Amino acid sequence: MTDLVTFGETMLRLSPPQGTRLETTEEFDVRIGGAESNVAVAGASLGVDSAWLSKLPRSPLGRHVVRELRSHGVRTGVAWDDGDDARLGTYYLEHGGDPRGTNVIYDRADASVTTVAPEQLPLGVLDDTAAFHTTGITPALSEPARATTAALLERASAAGATTSFDLNYRSKLWSHAEAREALTDLFEHVDTLFVARRDAEAVLDRDGEVVEVAHGLATDHGLETVVITRGDHGALALHDGEVFEQPVYEADTLDAIGTGDAFVGGFLAQRTLGGDIDAALEWGAATASLKRTIAGDLAVVTPEEVERVIEEGAGGISR
Amino acid sequence: MTDLVTFGETMLRLSPPQGTRLETTEEFDVRIGGAESNVAVAGASLGVDSAWLSKLPRSPLGRHVVRELRSHGVRTGVAWDDGDDARLGTYYLEHGGDPRGTNVIYDRADASVTTVAPEQLPLGVLDDTAAFHTTGITPALSEPARATTAALLERASAAGATTSFDLNYRSKLWSHAEAREALTDLFEHVDTLFVARRDAEAVLDRDGEVVEVAHGLATDHGLETVVITRGDHGALALHDGEVFEQPVYEADTLDAIGTGDAFVGGFLAQRTLGGDIDAALEWGAATASLKRTIAGDLAVVTPEEVERVIEEGAGGISR
Amino acid sequence: MTDLVTFGETMLRLSPPQGTRLETTEEFDVRIGGAESNVAVAGASLGVDSAWLSKLPRSPLGRHVVRELRSHGVRTGVAWDDGDDARLGTYYLEHGGDPRGTNVIYDRADASVTTVAPEQLPLGVLDDTAAFHTTGITPALSEPARATTAALLERASAAGATTSFDLNYRSKLWSHAEAREALTDLFEHVDTLFVARRDAEAVLDRDGEVVEVAHGLATDHGLETVVITRGDHGALALHDGEVFEQPVYEADTLDAIGTGDAFVGGFLAQRTLGGDIDAALEWGAATASLKRTIAGDLAVVTPEEVERVIEEGAGGISR
Amino acid sequence: MTDLVTFGETMLRLSPPQGTRLETTEEFDVRIGGAESNVAVAGASLGVDSAWLSKLPRSPLGRHVVRELRSHGVRTGVAWDDGDDARLGTYYLEHGGDPRGTNVIYDRADASVTTVAPEQLPLGVLDDTAAFHTTGITPALSEPARATTAALLERASAAGATTSFDLNYRSKLWSHAEAREALTDLFEHVDTLFVARRDAEAVLDRDGEVVEVAHGLATDHGLETVVITRGDHGALALHDGEVFEQPVYEADTLDAIGTGDAFVGGFLAQRTLGGDIDAALEWGAATASLKRTIAGDLAVVTPEEVERVIEEGAGGISR
Amino acid sequence: MTDLVTFGETMLRLSPPQGTRLETTEEFDVRIGGAESNVAVAGASLGVDSAWLSKLPRSPLGRHVVRELRSHGVRTGVAWDDGDDARLGTYYLEHGGDPRGTNVIYDRADASVTTVAPEQLPLGVLDDTAAFHTTGITPALSEPARATTAALLERASAAGATTSFDLNYRSKLWSHAEAREALTDLFEHVDTLFVARRDAEAVLDRDGEVVEVAHGLATDHGLETVVITRGDHGALALHDGEVFEQPVYEADTLDAIGTGDAFVGGFLAQRTLGGDIDAALEWGAATASLKRTIAGDLAVVTPEEVERVIEEGAGGISR
Amino acid sequence: MTDLVTFGETMLRLSPPQGTRLETTEEFDVRIGGAESNVAVAGASLGVDSAWLSKLPRSPLGRHVVRELRSHGVRTGVAWDDGDDARLGTYYLEHGGDPRGTNVIYDRADASVTTVAPEQLPLGVLDDTAAFHTTGITPALSEPARATTAALLERASAAGATTSFDLNYRSKLWSHAEAREALTDLFEHVDTLFVARRDAEAVLDRDGEVVEVAHGLATDHGLETVVITRGDHGALALHDGEVFEQPVYEADTLDAIGTGDAFVGGFLAQRTLGGDIDAALEWGAATASLKRTIAGDLAVVTPEEVERVIEEGAGGISR
Repeated sequence: MTDLVTFGETMLRLSPPQGTRLETTEEFDVRIGGAESNVAVAGASLGVDSAWLSKLPRSPLGRHVVRELRSHGVRTGVAWDDGDDARLGTYYLEHGGDPRGTNVIYDRADASVTTVAPEQLPLGVLDDTAAFHTTGITPALSEPARATTAALLERASAAGATTSFDLNYRSKLWSHAEAREALTDLFEHVDTLFVARRDAEAVLDRDGEVVEVAHGLATDHGLETVVITRGDHGALALHDGEVFEQPVYEADTLDAIGTGDAFVGGFLAQRTLGGDIDAALEWGAATASLKRTIAGDLAVVTPEEVERVIEEGAGGISR
Repeated sequence: MTDLVTFGETMLRLSPPQGTRLETTEEFDVRIGGAESNVAVAGASLGVDSAWLSKLPRSPLGRHVVRELRSHGVRTGVAWDDGDDARLGTYYLEHGGDPRGTNVIYDRADASVTTVAPEQLPLGVLDDTAAFHTTGITPALSEPARATTAALLERASAAGATTSFDLNYRSKLWSHAEAREALTDLFEHVDTLFVARRDAEAVLDRDGEVVEVAHGLATDHGLETVVITRGDHGALALHDGEVFEQPVYEADTLDAIGTGDAFVGGFLAQRTLGGDIDAALEWGAATASLKRTIAGDLAVVTPEEVERVIEEGAGGISR
Repeated sequence: MTDLVTFGETMLRLSPPQGTRLETTEEFDVRIGGAESNVAVAGASLGVDSAWLSKLPRSPLGRHVVRELRSHGVRTGVAWDDGDDARLGTYYLEHGGDPRGTNVIYDRADASVTTVAPEQLPLGVLDDTAAFHTTGITPALSEPARATTAALLERASAAGATTSFDLNYRSKLWSHAEAREALTDLFEHVDTLFVARRDAEAVLDRDGEVVEVAHGLATDHGLETVVITRGDHGALALHDGEVFEQPVYEADTLDAIGTGDAFVGGFLAQRTLGGDIDAALEWGAATASLKRTIAGDLAVVTPEEVERVIEEGAGGISR
Repeated sequence: MTDLVTFGETMLRLSPPQGTRLETTEEFDVRIGGAESNVAVAGASLGVDSAWLSKLPRSPLGRHVVRELRSHGVRTGVAWDDGDDARLGTYYLEHGGDPRGTNVIYDRADASVTTVAPEQLPLGVLDDTAAFHTTGITPALSEPARATTAALLERASAAGATTSFDLNYRSKLWSHAEAREALTDLFEHVDTLFVARRDAEAVLDRDGEVVEVAHGLATDHGLETVVITRGDHGALALHDGEVFEQPVYEADTLDAIGTGDAFVGGFLAQRTLGGDIDAALEWGAATASLKRTIAGDLAVVTPEEVERVIEEGAGGISR
Repeated sequence: MTDLVTFGETMLRLSPPQGTRLETTEEFDVRIGGAESNVAVAGASLGVDSAWLSKLPRSPLGRHVVRELRSHGVRTGVAWDDGDDARLGTYYLEHGGDPRGTNVIYDRADASVTTVAPEQLPLGVLDDTAAFHTTGITPALSEPARATTAALLERASAAGATTSFDLNYRSKLWSHAEAREALTDLFEHVDTLFVARRDAEAVLDRDGEVVEVAHGLATDHGLETVVITRGDHGALALHDGEVFEQPVYEADTLDAIGTGDAFVGGFLAQRTLGGDIDAALEWGAATASLKRTIAGDLAVVTPEEVERVIEEGAGGISR
Repeated sequence: MTDLVTFGETMLRLSPPQGTRLETTEEFDVRIGGAESNVAVAGASLGVDSAWLSKLPRSPLGRHVVRELRSHGVRTGVAWDDGDDARLGTYYLEHGGDPRGTNVIYDRADASVTTVAPEQLPLGVLDDTAAFHTTGITPALSEPARATTAALLERASAAGATTSFDLNYRSKLWSHAEAREALTDLFEHVDTLFVARRDAEAVLDRDGEVVEVAHGLATDHGLETVVITRGDHGALALHDGEVFEQPVYEADTLDAIGTGDAFVGGFLAQRTLGGDIDAALEWGAATASLKRTIAGDLAVVTPEEVERVIEEGAGGISR
């Protein structure tokens, strides 16, 4: 029995030291990142038995991803790609303070995951999991990835898992219209939808007051739970007709990448542990806040730390 | 003739890079730290002839401590422990911004200093020093360390040195009650007491307005000077019945560890140089402020820099 | 079903950069090391399902060990020590070329593993494993560790596992006489003994020609297999009365620590996969040789690399 | 045809890691810096064909400077110094947050550039450039450097280039009086003067309201354009009798060194590209703001980034 | 007038620290490498005016390549690829001592250069260059790259340049048969062929004694000069019917990648400077030997250093 | 009472990482080096109370030198230079394997030490020291440095110290003829001369068999002891007419700089401790050999390590 299974692409993340540019750097910090594995890591860190499914090149780079995920306690179900041109997607990340901002360059075309098919994956794990999660990035990668996403959502749902989906629109992968069509098709087998306010508007064409947006989405797509994130303004959840609000916990941000995935991971972990929506929102917000203080995409945190943020907020020195 | 002698434990301080966790780091920054040697380093940096007494394992790690202290101009009077199990205490320090906070893990049990005895130390230096300083950490380490603390305070006091004591309560070492009993016993030979407001309350059971607390402590324990530190609210000193207040100098904090010791070092350095309580408080606050901009426990500063902070406050670029 | 279970202590390994001394370093490379987990990592790297049993402090440092082992695919069965003084053993490693040599300082007294007891461990794994391995370091740590070693060997043996034992004498932990008495007691439930020639002589009092030594050990202690390692002179195995010899594969040594454990891991992996003694010796020698080119205790290698060393020996550039 | 030629000294810039002091560092970050080459790099980064003239020792250190400048697209016209004592100036830079401030130690006496003479330089480039720029640092270096500055300004001006001059007073090189006399002599062949408000007052004896100061300078020295910089208060330009104001763009400052040069580089680049004073001030301010987020003296930025700052201000994440 | 123009792909080269594996590294050293730009850098370092033609993505990564090449004095003629999927090829390089060897993983499929066409490049530079050089890697990248290689060789040859070609067979890109057919077609416009002995045999089907091989190639393909490299056994050149031999200069090898390109660069530089075949072979061998002591693909050397190796061989300390 | 006093220049030593060139490095390893302070550090490391006299700029860089020397236990008697142009000499060191060799660039002209005068130094230490040592580098720095060298040798000799002198010819500072004249003048007050065989020949005009050379020098200059070093061929000492020979101990050389100074330091330490010439030569050779394994100029070794090299030679692993 697994608590949480996720499916998606994980890339190598290469970033120069702070204050140094991609054009001039002589050194990369090497990490991994991918929305769905980020969620699995947050889940595993918070005590939830988590697994991640994907396709990787059979190479030291593919194994690099597996090793890193395993180190965080995530079990991996990998279709190994033996092709000559099998490749791991990479993304280059340059952190810059204001006004330079953070720059991301993706180099993910033709990554092994773009040729994934359901039968290549150890699908049995879906028959015995409490929850299944994926995001709107995966179906944008390729037609096979889209079809596999649909198949996994359907199978997990059929097997009784709670399914969740983070819309996560990526403008470098497809247009609003393409995304809308593909994603809404997938909502049929989704129980919980996470969506950023701006994506609800731009991709899903949902204007208006946030509670209305949530109601509209829930009603139109038969969603049990809709969680709308609003950056600094916190998150709002609509669950079984009831509205829940959650402010953000302030953080000294060292690395903002992965904050949204940490939120989802914290939320799902608490739900899997049996918590209600209120508690799940708190865990989501606290995990997201802690993530901001940690370099890399991954929320390397403990349940105790999450609880402490919820109870005390502040940091301080403990000795 | 020495200006300032201190006695206590110094540990190896191991910390991961910023944004990286103890659980995942592949690298430690290696430094040393110990309240009493921190004070001696601040003193020596500020032009006061300083020495530090302790017990260390006769090993490259023990010599590491001596080398580092010597580099800052501190003379060392060390009892070398030749035992097979002689060990140097270590502490692991993980810096985290809010809301993660700073985490300290001590690994100091059975360090060589816990078996120290007065006769193992070069006590002659106490007969010819202007000042002697130690803290409430040392007597918490072991019974021999407590007895040695008492013996050194007594001898230094008898020889005419001004003795000072920083309460420095450490909850991981003993309870409030244990600390209260042991520490108040030591106050007999103490001239100047440094104590954080919260420790005065929690450990010494002193409630109420800060000036009253200072008066109460001075009266009950026959202390010539009581300095109460209040974090961002600055410090207050009671000396010969007169009250002095000192606000903090603002700082961009890179590493807060050692700030209190820098304050004490600056205060004692100015007193040793003949300054009055006002000047000592200024030096204490300015040294503490500069320390916050420097990585590590140690206040590597110059008297000129301290004076400039007192006069100008700000930083800027000088060229 | 597990292929290989090991039991023992794993420590934090702290080492300064090449050419820098423990006395003066400002930086430590942070890794982990322990004879039995080193063997498990080699096994897992070579495709053998491996697990490691031990006791660790419930702290970021304890979790650091688990994370690292998991990253190499080793499952961990850990008794978490919640004690206030729970500590992780550390060892300081200074690499030096000739004539300086390599210097190791252990700081392992009172590590959590010294209080281990069989009932704290998930012993069920022993009932379903093909092989169990431990070393002569573990019983030297403490009386509880010795008793637990005996209990685990007995249980694994009773359950039908092939048991192996690497003598691994550590002069800093006990005398020759103490080691001889304790270790030979354990041989009752051991099937395969690994022992360095010099330890066979110094600890087990076995003089004479190496084949005689092997025969004597096998006969006196009822060992199915005796593997004697002789540094640059290679290894010799006696199995069911037959003698096998294996030279070393030459290597550009970057880090010699863990070479012996890599040998054992390669040997046991091949045996577990069904190989005969000849093949196991080849895998052992090739894994050991590859390990020497890798920083850290751990043999991060693939079966393909091991096979290539056996077939070709040399390195070269592949592109 | 070159767009922009600059002339001046470039030094090796050596700085310890953040939080570490020059007194104790074991490591220097190695970069280059010099007001005039900083301007040329900003210009080249912004698409303007730029060249830099100077004198350097014929050594790996001299070539280090040329390599770095070339990497940014700046062409170099170097007089190579073959003297036995030929040296490259260095400057040591210690960044410190408040209240420590940033400390600069120059070691530039007798650098090769102090013996420069016009005939050693490839002066032909001046006959075919749209703009020529130098600063008040160069004439302060030595008498030959002062004479060469004068000769180059005169030649460039005669050839029809727009000449500009950044006053850049350095108190460690000469007195206010010396600077005033030498610099005002040079103004005869200057079209555009950049001057900090405080230098206008201290060095050029110009009190009063900033617009009056600009008018006074323009009138007294026959300057076509006067740009007065006022730190956080932004810049003001007087051009053909018209006044232009430009606020600063806010920035998360990682390294403030080179901000003024980035401003000048952005201004001159836009002017060279045909922009009016308004646009030039915007480019100057935006380039300066981006520079603050980048380690080192140099503004490694693109025209697109500058335009984005002007249009949007903020940073954010683009993906 | 340019001395040497080269054409080919340049990739980002990412390598973990010594002793660390691609599977586990947290850090990459970032450099660039490509056979033809390596040759151009060696040429420029040795005083020959060099240029490099290629196609790159219009991105910070593409500019990274240009910056690095410019820093070595190489002029760049780049077709900038504005496509959404424009990408820079990368290669991962893991150095390992024996028996692990050096492992290279290419990730170069669909790099921008694979869509290069002659008319995208600044071909005018070919009409005014003394020499043109490319390698057998480029035509293996794609059909457009092959056609462009042919077109450039033809145009340079027609314009009077001496053309040279390094066979450089890459088994990961094509088969022996494919390579043979494509490459021999290109020989029509080649004056000088560099080929490794093993490639002459495996790709060009040339068995037998090395001098015969050279004669056969020269005769069959109308080559003016044939240079056959034989690893540790040195190089042999056949020029106008005359045979020249050159042993290698011994080196402490830190990084062997790029050695062959350094040889070609040194050879061509000396030829361009007017040297005869003997001198060119010496320069080639000395440049190759120096390269081995330098990290990265590039031969950052001076003519003086090359001359010193030829004259003295040894290293020593000069002070 | 001091055991050993030395006098001379200490510089900042800046070196790029292994395999990286001064032309391209982005990072310097920061250390200090100077023949006489190197000797003092070796002496202090070996248990001899050592002091070093010199002149330094009153700056963080000057204090950097003092801090480093103090960390090794060397007491410092420094004339602080308050001049505006006070500077610390630097040297740039690029390590290269064969055939590149090691390259040193000095930037020491006009360092503060060049204006030293005897009365600026705490000469009293010379009246109470067992030994005084300096080298032929110091008098080459400037006329004042030469005069001070002479004065200190005379005073130390007059006070009864054993004086020693290492010829240490530096071709970048003066000619053979200048050196010969200046140095032989100084021999009057020298008891022990260390000289490399090649310097004896080139500078002192001493041809012929090495024992004759030693005899000639001893006789002509009234030297009690002459030690001639011959690189890999070891050292030879002539003392009171008796000849002693010492081979080198083999070493894996990581950094050869400072080997000669380590030899002198080891020799003088043993002599100061009362050892005879044989023992002194052994200590010199063993200290030199250990130094070669350590990065930097300084011999950070212990007497126990030196003894172990003498007894066992080899390194190995101790655990």
